Amino acid sequence: MAPKIATFFLRFLLLCSAGVWAQAYDPSKQLSVGIILFPGFQPLDVIGPLDIIMMLSASHNISLAMIGKEEGIVPGPSPPRRNEPPTAYPVRGPSIVATHSFVDAPKLDILLAPGGMGLRVLDENKDTWIQDFIASRYDELQYLVSVCTGAASLAQSGVLKGRRATTNKASWAWATQFGEGVNWVPTARWTEDGKVWTSSGVSAGIDMTYALFKRLMGAEAANRIMNAIEYTPHLNEHWDPFSLVHKVPGADASQQLGECVGPAGFEFKCS
Amino acid sequence: MAPKIATFFLRFLLLCSAGVWAQAYDPSKQLSVGIILFPGFQPLDVIGPLDIIMMLSASHNISLAMIGKEEGIVPGPSPPRRNEPPTAYPVRGPSIVATHSFVDAPKLDILLAPGGMGLRVLDENKDTWIQDFIASRYDELQYLVSVCTGAASLAQSGVLKGRRATTNKASWAWATQFGEGVNWVPTARWTEDGKVWTSSGVSAGIDMTYALFKRLMGAEAANRIMNAIEYTPHLNEHWDPFSLVHKVPGADASQQLGECVGPAGFEFKCS
Repeated sequence: MAPKIATFFLRFLLLCSAGVWAQAYDPSKQLSVGIILFPGFQPLDVIGPLDIIMMLSASHNISLAMIGKEEGIVPGPSPPRRNEPPTAYPVRGPSIVATHSFVDAPKLDILLAPGGMGLRVLDENKDTWIQDFIASRYDELQYLVSVCTGAASLAQSGVLKGRRATTNKASWAWATQFGEGVNWVPTARWTEDGKVWTSSGVSAGIDMTYALFKRLMGAEAANRIMNAIEYTPHLNEHWDPFSLVHKVPGADASQQLGECVGPAGFEFKCS
Repeated sequence: MAPKIATFFLRFLLLCSAGVWAQAYDPSKQLSVGIILFPGFQPLDVIGPLDIIMMLSASHNISLAMIGKEEGIVPGPSPPRRNEPPTAYPVRGPSIVATHSFVDAPKLDILLAPGGMGLRVLDENKDTWIQDFIASRYDELQYLVSVCTGAASLAQSGVLKGRRATTNKASWAWATQFGEGVNWVPTARWTEDGKVWTSSGVSAGIDMTYALFKRLMGAEAANRIMNAIEYTPHLNEHWDPFSLVHKVPGADASQQLGECVGPAGFEFKCS
């Protein structure tokens, strides 16, 4: 009998390590995703992750709430900064529709907070709707996710206390001034601490989103999407050359600036 | 005198090869950019390039027209296909605002045509507004650019006759059925043929846009943006592992699936 039990446990461990556990995700189970929008959001912070979510939604039961301060059109360009000179030319960006306000947003499983220059305007104006919304929804979430300076909103909400987090390396000083007791990680493409995932700047959000949905829905589904959108993800959350490019204090100076990337789920090398 | 002339020409050649020529771009010169939108556009086809353009617009005089069939909100999700079964679940996507209709769009220097499932619906419905718009604006353009299956719109417009082009490798058969005399390149991250640039699927549009603006505005401006958005561009337009992943006929089977990438403008290696 003992060998049979040992064999059972061995097979169990093998199944777990092969990620079969994650692949048991039920595509018919509704997953409620919310993405925060504000004037002056960084477009790719929102659309990088959302393109992956959109592609997954064809085969998985996903609902989506685009959440603004009010429902309706959210301007891409940021309102002017209070004490900063204007840019040389007007910043152009896309305006996206908020399907919900923070007041009527549905119950959420995943909430994503993007970055963007508009966060600085909200901070200057002491407009706390985003941080308040994050704090009010934190308990119900399966994952709380930030891209780029969206980590500042998480820090302001108080949920990063005692947690590891990262943010855009070009805006490091600004974003990391917020929050108490946050363990800001200077060299990270993204961080994971419990249910809170934070990515470095803009396009790092795509890599983090891939890693998150691979964990949640399994490698087959996540890899299929990455190859459909022809994106070669960075797989190592500790690789972060931009911490050196932008001279972040405490950055790992021993790391390699380059990384070998290729199609998700394939073996590849760079020689 | 002869040595002086020789020195002058040598310095001239060195300046050209160092890209100083491209860096002579005048940031105050207005550059008019248009991006086509339709229901069921692929979000990252639009926002990948647009995020770069947005970042450049702070320091360069860029105007932006988001061009729909009508002005106003363009739904992200595609209308249903005529003869195809619906997806298992409703596809979720962002709705973006068209600032102009094709009738009132301004004079353009750069026109970008994105891909997306909605193009198939337009084709099924014999709605030719996009191809007609491209054909009508072709002569005025400095660059005509497509991302992903947006190359189908270029082919349908007739402007690809006798030209090299590429498209999404997962939708190769669908997109390459259009146009006459198009030299479809099966292994290409992007192609450049005169003023017509076409990229492979979705995220390849980011690499192409970087290459294009590096050419147009110089390496300093383009590299600064890539590092701000923490994107490590693929620099080799002939690298295309997705032509093998998606088994495109005629794909270069000898190529390496992986590529070493790193911060733009920095020396890096993958060892």
